[in-house]
Amino acid sequence: MSYSINSAEKKLSIINLFDLEEKFQKSMQQSNHEKEADFILGGAGSEYTLRHNISDFDDWEIVPSVMHGLCEDDGVTTTKIFDIDLKTPIIVSPSAAHGLVHKSAELGTIKGTFNAGSLMTVSTFSNELLKDIHESSPNAPWFYQFSMDQNEKLSDFLLHEAVTQGAKAIVVGVFGASFGRRERDIRNNFDFDPDLPFRQLAAFPDYPKNLDILKVNGRTRDISPKEIAVIKKKTGLPVLIKGIQTGEDAIRAIEFGADGIWISNTGGRQLDGIRSTINALPEIAKAVNKRVPIVFDSGIRRGQQVFKALALGADLIAIGRAPLYGLHFGGHKGVTSVLAQLQVELLNTMLLSGITTIDEIKQNARLVRTNR
Amino acid sequence: MSYSINSAEKKLSIINLFDLEEKFQKSMQQSNHEKEADFILGGAGSEYTLRHNISDFDDWEIVPSVMHGLCEDDGVTTTKIFDIDLKTPIIVSPSAAHGLVHKSAELGTIKGTFNAGSLMTVSTFSNELLKDIHESSPNAPWFYQFSMDQNEKLSDFLLHEAVTQGAKAIVVGVFGASFGRRERDIRNNFDFDPDLPFRQLAAFPDYPKNLDILKVNGRTRDISPKEIAVIKKKTGLPVLIKGIQTGEDAIRAIEFGADGIWISNTGGRQLDGIRSTINALPEIAKAVNKRVPIVFDSGIRRGQQVFKALALGADLIAIGRAPLYGLHFGGHKGVTSVLAQLQVELLNTMLLSGITTIDEIKQNARLVRTNR
Amino acid sequence: MSYSINSAEKKLSIINLFDLEEKFQKSMQQSNHEKEADFILGGAGSEYTLRHNISDFDDWEIVPSVMHGLCEDDGVTTTKIFDIDLKTPIIVSPSAAHGLVHKSAELGTIKGTFNAGSLMTVSTFSNELLKDIHESSPNAPWFYQFSMDQNEKLSDFLLHEAVTQGAKAIVVGVFGASFGRRERDIRNNFDFDPDLPFRQLAAFPDYPKNLDILKVNGRTRDISPKEIAVIKKKTGLPVLIKGIQTGEDAIRAIEFGADGIWISNTGGRQLDGIRSTINALPEIAKAVNKRVPIVFDSGIRRGQQVFKALALGADLIAIGRAPLYGLHFGGHKGVTSVLAQLQVELLNTMLLSGITTIDEIKQNARLVRTNR
Amino acid sequence: MSYSINSAEKKLSIINLFDLEEKFQKSMQQSNHEKEADFILGGAGSEYTLRHNISDFDDWEIVPSVMHGLCEDDGVTTTKIFDIDLKTPIIVSPSAAHGLVHKSAELGTIKGTFNAGSLMTVSTFSNELLKDIHESSPNAPWFYQFSMDQNEKLSDFLLHEAVTQGAKAIVVGVFGASFGRRERDIRNNFDFDPDLPFRQLAAFPDYPKNLDILKVNGRTRDISPKEIAVIKKKTGLPVLIKGIQTGEDAIRAIEFGADGIWISNTGGRQLDGIRSTINALPEIAKAVNKRVPIVFDSGIRRGQQVFKALALGADLIAIGRAPLYGLHFGGHKGVTSVLAQLQVELLNTMLLSGITTIDEIKQNARLVRTNR
Repeated sequence: MSYSINSAEKKLSIINLFDLEEKFQKSMQQSNHEKEADFILGGAGSEYTLRHNISDFDDWEIVPSVMHGLCEDDGVTTTKIFDIDLKTPIIVSPSAAHGLVHKSAELGTIKGTFNAGSLMTVSTFSNELLKDIHESSPNAPWFYQFSMDQNEKLSDFLLHEAVTQGAKAIVVGVFGASFGRRERDIRNNFDFDPDLPFRQLAAFPDYPKNLDILKVNGRTRDISPKEIAVIKKKTGLPVLIKGIQTGEDAIRAIEFGADGIWISNTGGRQLDGIRSTINALPEIAKAVNKRVPIVFDSGIRRGQQVFKALALGADLIAIGRAPLYGLHFGGHKGVTSVLAQLQVELLNTMLLSGITTIDEIKQNARLVRTNR
Repeated sequence: MSYSINSAEKKLSIINLFDLEEKFQKSMQQSNHEKEADFILGGAGSEYTLRHNISDFDDWEIVPSVMHGLCEDDGVTTTKIFDIDLKTPIIVSPSAAHGLVHKSAELGTIKGTFNAGSLMTVSTFSNELLKDIHESSPNAPWFYQFSMDQNEKLSDFLLHEAVTQGAKAIVVGVFGASFGRRERDIRNNFDFDPDLPFRQLAAFPDYPKNLDILKVNGRTRDISPKEIAVIKKKTGLPVLIKGIQTGEDAIRAIEFGADGIWISNTGGRQLDGIRSTINALPEIAKAVNKRVPIVFDSGIRRGQQVFKALALGADLIAIGRAPLYGLHFGGHKGVTSVLAQLQVELLNTMLLSGITTIDEIKQNARLVRTNR
Repeated sequence: MSYSINSAEKKLSIINLFDLEEKFQKSMQQSNHEKEADFILGGAGSEYTLRHNISDFDDWEIVPSVMHGLCEDDGVTTTKIFDIDLKTPIIVSPSAAHGLVHKSAELGTIKGTFNAGSLMTVSTFSNELLKDIHESSPNAPWFYQFSMDQNEKLSDFLLHEAVTQGAKAIVVGVFGASFGRRERDIRNNFDFDPDLPFRQLAAFPDYPKNLDILKVNGRTRDISPKEIAVIKKKTGLPVLIKGIQTGEDAIRAIEFGADGIWISNTGGRQLDGIRSTINALPEIAKAVNKRVPIVFDSGIRRGQQVFKALALGADLIAIGRAPLYGLHFGGHKGVTSVLAQLQVELLNTMLLSGITTIDEIKQNARLVRTNR
Repeated sequence: MSYSINSAEKKLSIINLFDLEEKFQKSMQQSNHEKEADFILGGAGSEYTLRHNISDFDDWEIVPSVMHGLCEDDGVTTTKIFDIDLKTPIIVSPSAAHGLVHKSAELGTIKGTFNAGSLMTVSTFSNELLKDIHESSPNAPWFYQFSMDQNEKLSDFLLHEAVTQGAKAIVVGVFGASFGRRERDIRNNFDFDPDLPFRQLAAFPDYPKNLDILKVNGRTRDISPKEIAVIKKKTGLPVLIKGIQTGEDAIRAIEFGADGIWISNTGGRQLDGIRSTINALPEIAKAVNKRVPIVFDSGIRRGQQVFKALALGADLIAIGRAPLYGLHFGGHKGVTSVLAQLQVELLNTMLLSGITTIDEIKQNARLVRTNR
């Protein structure tokens, strides 16, 4: 038997990502994948942080300034991270099991991301082998999101494979020593379909069937700051610390060798009741003070939100759920459509704000904080 | 074939403009013009700015002061701009294609506006020739909203005709180098009806069928500050810069020769997520410091909002959508009814606040900012 | 023919006044008096001020303090104004035409108010003669709300009759030179039923049928500050100025001889978009500085609101709509029930806050302002 | 005849306490105990304080900090009060008549609480004798909530029995000299079922049938500060003062000998319109300054709220309604399930915030106050 899911490959006509999110939920429900949709869409607890990740962007309003000269050129959104050239500041966050939404799984995501001029972060919990992901899109840059296990051999196996297959950086999550209580999953008694194996993990010779890191509400193994140096040494790659939510933690991460700070609350999936990432960003940007790049995720549904996060100090903006909606409806072409949609909205926001480059957003864009 | 639309001429009985807006939407839907109604009513993106343009007026509350002497006289609302006498501080913003809502198109609007003692701003995208507009109401003062095109001959043709037909000022929009993403229009796949030509544009000998400035989501040509002087020289008319949203931009516009500042976010139709005009007004009024007149638009549905904008530093208040509702239901008489409604509400607000002239509003009216 | 309305006399069982308000509206609708209910319940414009008069009380939270000693006694709510002893700080605001809701009209209201140990303010637009009102409850103290007319003879006639019938004070409204635009009344094309005459006005020999002050949306005659002294001289009675909404106006009123300040926006019936009376109170209390008593109205539906207004500086609290609900359902007994309900709630709030007298509320009650 | 109610004993599968609350209400309605459910769920007045006790926790957001070292150990939640070892900082508030929801009444609650490593506060209005409660779970620590009566003999009788049966502390409520106006109860004409006697009170030889303290909306007898010393002397037990809502009252209570401060507004059941306990906590914690332990109740439905209250200065967190939901569905096992649920949520919040002990929460947890 196998997990039955969409395999269409087509470009999407998207109004906006809220709209696409609704359609995704309906489509998954209609194909008996309601629990999988809940796993992807849901957040921890009362989903306060999930909601505020999105709505808190409204605490900041854009102030367009258009009287500073004639805009002869179209805007450009090219940028860089670790010497990788990107056509857009919008990249793809790690998320587990892309096979849940489309036959092509991570092979579709990396191709669609690459065609959009962006890069993807592959999860430890991918349904495809790193080798297959890499070889299917050999020119596509990608990051590897590494979940540390109690079993050091497994950790070494995964890191070694990531390096071998050409990962450009290692992304290590720090979310405390537990899993988020996602109540939709608890209600649904959700578990991953056994027909959708985590192929890279399963490739490990001693692959344990009840691996701790696989349990939806189990106990995980968090990284120690000192291990940053170990991972850097083992891989020779830059390491980004994902999950940073305070300026102080950002400073500590940099002191321990982090090459990049990734602000994230995993889209409200871990701890509910914490502040939104957009409201944490100013404090962190100030603490980082441009020493290393800042990746920002959680809450992004609009190009104007990308603009706001860049204006408040982020260098790259990552999205996790939306690429899955695109993948679901259109395979790699759908992923490209999703990235293109945000890109179009971002560019539109830039031009209508009197701004034509990503650097200008960072230097000149003005936001005002509302008092609502 | 021709575009089928209402041609009634009648005075309207209006409760308030919110009410009229609802009726307008229903009436347009019933006559199969739902897409046209969406084009008129809609805003960019999530319509955050469209909504906040209206609701942010509630951030300011009026504080009536009635103990300063006996009010023997009725209030008066007469005012002036560029030596044009007006019976009301409420004028009409430019908007495209009045033929969408009523047979008489801009001929109805200018007549109705004039009968209300006000003035109209004619859009570059009018359905009627400037000559016909002027000759139909030869004594009516009007402004010309000028959209610059890449084709300089077209620009010169339009400006020359505006001067010839007696425009009192040129209104030039600065909204950045793109169009707003109005998602209702994208959903509706909206385009202007070919049976409703932009007659003044079409009168240009080399009129291109796919003129850039006509595309709903295309790329436009924004003005350069230095061109303000060029337009002034070519026309000999005062130039108002429309779309100003910061104090700094207002100062630059004045330095480059602007004769008036027109605060507008086009009713939330261009860039969503920006602050409301009422919340931008205090900063701009302070920067302008009475050197040139300030026209204010976006969000006005109530006479008390007119009062608040005047109290915060505006000199004239412009409305764009509401005159179209009036035009739709009653031709020129409907336009007069809409202006009269706001006028009645404004006068009522003045008298109940202990104020009897427009100047007194500017000098004495007290508002308090709520902390909601 | 005559206006058909309830004439029951009975004590009411009240849960709270919000509840009673709903029942009142339903009852009036069922007896074909929907327009009259709208006249009583409605406010001006969008009813923003009507709503905020009530909801802004939530900006202030009570902080009970109960550790200051044993509460041996029940609380007492007795108080005074102009040497009139009252069992409660809650009195009745003027409102027109009590005959709209009950056969007994103002005769019921004065009796019910007196039996509650309170006092009533009789409106110029009463359905009963002052003589009949007074003689029906000869021991009941009452104030007279005086609407000045262009016709000085009428004014003198009314003031003379008020003095003759034993009014204890004159209440003069200052609301600017217009009527509120109550859109429910405009929609309903509301006018007072000719079978319910304003008897005291009609008793004036030259009673004009189209008296200006009777028009729902007409032009009224506001008082001049200097006329305060005139009225005081003519009547020999203390004069309260009703409608004060700023500290500055309160100071001016006192300078011109006012013996009391009555803070009111007539329950949101005049100018919409103004601040709630509870948010105007602190500024006014500071300006008055205990020189004259402050009566407070608009928005009161709960005993805890009475408590809050007293804590913020009011001396008496007036209610206008709620006595009419009581009158409607139970004649004079219903009026007493309404006053008793607020009284019970007030006393409960006092005792649970550790406070036992009205003076203690004014001196010791602590409120905190929320930042919502 | 006897009061018919659930007697099941079973462990519960709980998603969260909001969910359980809804199920409780439905289950009680289905068994014709709607009035009893309303008595338990309801609050005073408009239930403003009831709602804000819960929602005001959202004014505070948690800021996780996870970069301070490897979390090798699971978190621990052990704590102490008056030398009683507890496995959790979550204890049970006093509430009347547990027999309303389950056959086992207080015998179930004390057993379930003890099995969760927590302690229960027994109400003066228990349906079971203190002797039976104690003997049914002889090792369970418990506090006695003492309601003082006008009749000193009754008071002495109750205190003596509490000491005899091994109470560890006396909890004395100070809520002012009245009962809360719980409008659900007034509407329902609620009274306690005569088949569910308050056995301990009834054991008093002169037990009066119409005892004042039993009336739902009667007049109660509040404690005098000086009586704290009397109770301490009579019982030899520590005394906690419950109902403190200001820093000043906390200081006074300590000065009069209180051994602990219990912040509570009885879940919004007494005076409506007062501030939430979570917003009162910072001021009180500052005033107490760690001199005596602080127990906090009112509004707790989530482990993250427990975390927030501890972070703001509370030592123990008490819950009153939720144990009754658990008792209703599963007897003593249900009570344990409810405490375990909050415990799981608390531990999850700790681990995901980078915190592993209760003391660390108090010393290191960081909250930010939102400006919503």
